[in-house]
Amino acid sequence: MLEDKNQERTSLEKLGEFGLIQHLTKSFKLNHKSTLKGIGDDAAVLDFGGKKAIVSTDMLVEGVHFDLSYMPLKHLGYKSVMVNLSDIYAMNAIATQITVSIAVSNRFPLEALEEFYAGVALAAELYKVDLIGGDTTSSTKGMIISVTAIGEANEADITYRNGAKPNDLLVVSGDLGGAYCGLQVLEREKEVFKVNPNNQPDLSPYTYIIERQLKPESRKDIKGLLQGLEIKPTAMIDISDGLSSEILHLCKASEVGCNLFEEKIPLDPTVISACEEFSIDSTLVALSGGEDYELLFTIDQKDFPKIKGNPHFSIIGHMTDKNEGANLVSRSDTKIPITAQGWNSFS
Amino acid sequence: MLEDKNQERTSLEKLGEFGLIQHLTKSFKLNHKSTLKGIGDDAAVLDFGGKKAIVSTDMLVEGVHFDLSYMPLKHLGYKSVMVNLSDIYAMNAIATQITVSIAVSNRFPLEALEEFYAGVALAAELYKVDLIGGDTTSSTKGMIISVTAIGEANEADITYRNGAKPNDLLVVSGDLGGAYCGLQVLEREKEVFKVNPNNQPDLSPYTYIIERQLKPESRKDIKGLLQGLEIKPTAMIDISDGLSSEILHLCKASEVGCNLFEEKIPLDPTVISACEEFSIDSTLVALSGGEDYELLFTIDQKDFPKIKGNPHFSIIGHMTDKNEGANLVSRSDTKIPITAQGWNSFS
Repeated sequence: MLEDKNQERTSLEKLGEFGLIQHLTKSFKLNHKSTLKGIGDDAAVLDFGGKKAIVSTDMLVEGVHFDLSYMPLKHLGYKSVMVNLSDIYAMNAIATQITVSIAVSNRFPLEALEEFYAGVALAAELYKVDLIGGDTTSSTKGMIISVTAIGEANEADITYRNGAKPNDLLVVSGDLGGAYCGLQVLEREKEVFKVNPNNQPDLSPYTYIIERQLKPESRKDIKGLLQGLEIKPTAMIDISDGLSSEILHLCKASEVGCNLFEEKIPLDPTVISACEEFSIDSTLVALSGGEDYELLFTIDQKDFPKIKGNPHFSIIGHMTDKNEGANLVSRSDTKIPITAQGWNSFS
Repeated sequence: MLEDKNQERTSLEKLGEFGLIQHLTKSFKLNHKSTLKGIGDDAAVLDFGGKKAIVSTDMLVEGVHFDLSYMPLKHLGYKSVMVNLSDIYAMNAIATQITVSIAVSNRFPLEALEEFYAGVALAAELYKVDLIGGDTTSSTKGMIISVTAIGEANEADITYRNGAKPNDLLVVSGDLGGAYCGLQVLEREKEVFKVNPNNQPDLSPYTYIIERQLKPESRKDIKGLLQGLEIKPTAMIDISDGLSSEILHLCKASEVGCNLFEEKIPLDPTVISACEEFSIDSTLVALSGGEDYELLFTIDQKDFPKIKGNPHFSIIGHMTDKNEGANLVSRSDTKIPITAQGWNSFS
């Protein structure tokens, strides 16, 4: 996964900013009828007709959000897009366009940016989003990425955070904790590499969790899956900072409480074994790990038969009256108030 | 203009990311009917009905695009918005929404970010744009700002870069070179300050050019002015990198050449005197200085009587056949090919 250090280097200075944007984005195709004009003018032009436009933006900073010593640039480009699309999907909308801005210091040659944009291109292709703009500039230190994603939805389909009612079921897609466990493996291998750069570790037992960290997917499919089940979620949010933090956001916005059942939290077997290996509590990892980019949502109780046993979803709790607060119901049936221990870039 | 260094300091760690966004944006009001949902969910929701949406994004990096030793944070917040709105106005569109993302290192206390957002708020209020989202995160060094602006326009009004025809007139709003001259004054004062921190310089002769650098305005008014004159520009671009660079963009996109008349380039008297003081050529400053955020556009020759003598606009040349190239016609009537010497963050 590490980059080839012997690659050819082309300095960015030679190209200049406009040449650089043109060079990096020339292979991008436009997929959406709503994209009237993409890159190449002062601004992009979009046409959403009668639909609503959805907009989300995120910034990723080297040394804070990612470590290039184990994050290949192509994966980083891919992940940068995923982080933003996830926010669009969490509105029960379809992602249609992205802008990608990047600032890099002189130590990055053109080939590094090409790798990054190859990841952006792959994400754009697989998730059918049009790259419509961006900015490339220099930084005094490291790499900074800012992505804005735009989506569309019929007004009736849009799902906010504030629609959950008491007795609604709390549901999560996929499984949790994988991205955090993958990070632990990568951090450990980085330390090993420092001591012995020639060590070739066998990471095959960790494939799933490393992929969850380095090449996360966002849940484009959930909107369709729920439509197929004839379920309209009452509230929805994506899990970027950890289950506990996102549950608290949902509860606060919807003015409800909730009971989350520890035994219902979906964990992949690889996550359970990695937690044992690293002597960390798997529930804590799911609650606070973050970066899983699964969707957390609430549904009306009457929809229970429609979703019960569906392999894509786990019912992990239910919403309660606000006064009851947000609680984890442990395996030993003890109620523990949920506190936000999600990831905070400032601490 | 320098900040008060004895201000109270609140660490960002205490607030966390969500508390911070909430704190910084609580005073922002929404103005536009098209803003269905602003900050507070995974993404914002916009409704453009039958109009087209316009999107533009820019990144500003401390030490590359701005120097906090003479750029007050409030001005920086204001300018960050202007830079992006200018791109929307350059499409002959109305700016309606912005997202603002910011990464800062630990050396910035909350109060610094409040200052920055006060500038954003002022810009949002004066230019009637809604802040609908953003991201605040930490950086390992310095401050990085990423702004995305969204606008709307009727399809027939949108002006791209590629519509200029031979014989169209080349027109610019306002005057040029001021922002660059202001920067020269500020850089000089910074050097003086290093030697004698107690020196209180009299900057009043430079008020106009310093304002052009520290608190630029973007030309929200041009769309209305041109509508009033019943002129639809054939092509338009904003002057962020310097007149020569923008002319070349217009010529390339429109596949035309142009003759730019040196004697017609609009210069404020303060710019002329500052150029004399600093022994720099005022034409070169206008051509390569950048950051003026005026609009450069082309109009059909038949519209000449409508715009002639209008104090807001200067006719500075005309477009030619592509084979003639882009040329500066000097005061001595010599033709000099225009080369891009605009600002390049990578050099």
